[in-house]
Amino acid sequence: MKLYSYFRSSAAYRVRIALNLKKLPYEYLPVHLLRNGGEQHASAYRELNHDAVVPTLIDNGNVLQQSIAIIEYLEETHPQPPLLPGTPVERAFVRGVALQVACEIHPVNNLRVLKYLKRTVGANDEVKDAWYRHWITSGFTALEEHLVASRRSGAFCFGDTPTMADACLIPQVFNADRFKIDMSAFPTIRRINDHAMQLSAFADAAPGTQPDSE
Amino acid sequence: MKLYSYFRSSAAYRVRIALNLKKLPYEYLPVHLLRNGGEQHASAYRELNHDAVVPTLIDNGNVLQQSIAIIEYLEETHPQPPLLPGTPVERAFVRGVALQVACEIHPVNNLRVLKYLKRTVGANDEVKDAWYRHWITSGFTALEEHLVASRRSGAFCFGDTPTMADACLIPQVFNADRFKIDMSAFPTIRRINDHAMQLSAFADAAPGTQPDSE
Repeated sequence: MKLYSYFRSSAAYRVRIALNLKKLPYEYLPVHLLRNGGEQHASAYRELNHDAVVPTLIDNGNVLQQSIAIIEYLEETHPQPPLLPGTPVERAFVRGVALQVACEIHPVNNLRVLKYLKRTVGANDEVKDAWYRHWITSGFTALEEHLVASRRSGAFCFGDTPTMADACLIPQVFNADRFKIDMSAFPTIRRINDHAMQLSAFADAAPGTQPDSE
Repeated sequence: MKLYSYFRSSAAYRVRIALNLKKLPYEYLPVHLLRNGGEQHASAYRELNHDAVVPTLIDNGNVLQQSIAIIEYLEETHPQPPLLPGTPVERAFVRGVALQVACEIHPVNNLRVLKYLKRTVGANDEVKDAWYRHWITSGFTALEEHLVASRRSGAFCFGDTPTMADACLIPQVFNADRFKIDMSAFPTIRRINDHAMQLSAFADAAPGTQPDSE
């Protein structure tokens, strides 16, 4: 398998975690989102990924986009160890947590949104940074409440083994820490993150350990 | 089943389509996102949905959030007719299209994002409307290219029967039409939408035919 990735991309980080949890080796193909006017806009890459985003996974010549669709694909093609639990209700919980991160928090803070906010709306750095912090803080407030109220969380979001939910949550905590967001109101999220980062599947997927890390 | 819904919510509209395609009857529970300071913020609703968003589906006492997680749940619990195709690669394509809408376009134009843009960033209505149009137009540009290049689309996004991808796409076209976005550059999307709207499963799920429609 080949993964088009950028070390700091949350969505690529999610797939790196899933590949590592399933012990699937892959070739790392860096796409620098900031250099050369954004390498994701190069026509050769856009033929693989019309949205001009990372990640893209190539498996047996098949071109796969969207991190959550890729993780579902890996789950179907390499079921062990499972990243989704056993019953439909439990799977809906895990997918729900994954999508809370992937739909409610991450897209609003995506690089192109921040660029538009700055260049077209005319927001200054202070307004842009407050925007970034606002969506993580409001999203994590809801997610912390949800994890606690669910009574389903253990060492990880669901029980004591990692799932797709953790593959989405941990990259978002990386972003929060990078922007020095006060995590004291989110003890469950903090605890799950710090536990996950002790596993090599998560640590080896982290931005700082990628070949294109700066 | 009970569905907490708002007639104009894209995410609720997706689930209404999926329920209709699977011919599953449900009780419609309206949550008005604008009245009473936003009924989604009422504490009774927030206990069901900590993110204070619609939809929420209640099935046998189980509380399910996030439209795509709910559609996956319906697919697992009521497999006929299927909303995902037969092979992992095909399913990844369908999920990828669904997530392109759900992760790349819709969240950036969500009500709370537009509110923050106006109230906190200080954008006027012109800037806000341009923002809204920008994300639909750029997202549909990528999606149109993707659908054409995939050679997988027929009457619907994947082949000639509706899938999860159409359940996500059609509500987004409703938003585009509501904001009078020029759709001439997106003939495939337009065609799929107009075909889908001839089916009662889609037409009966449309905002204009909901009990809380205004």
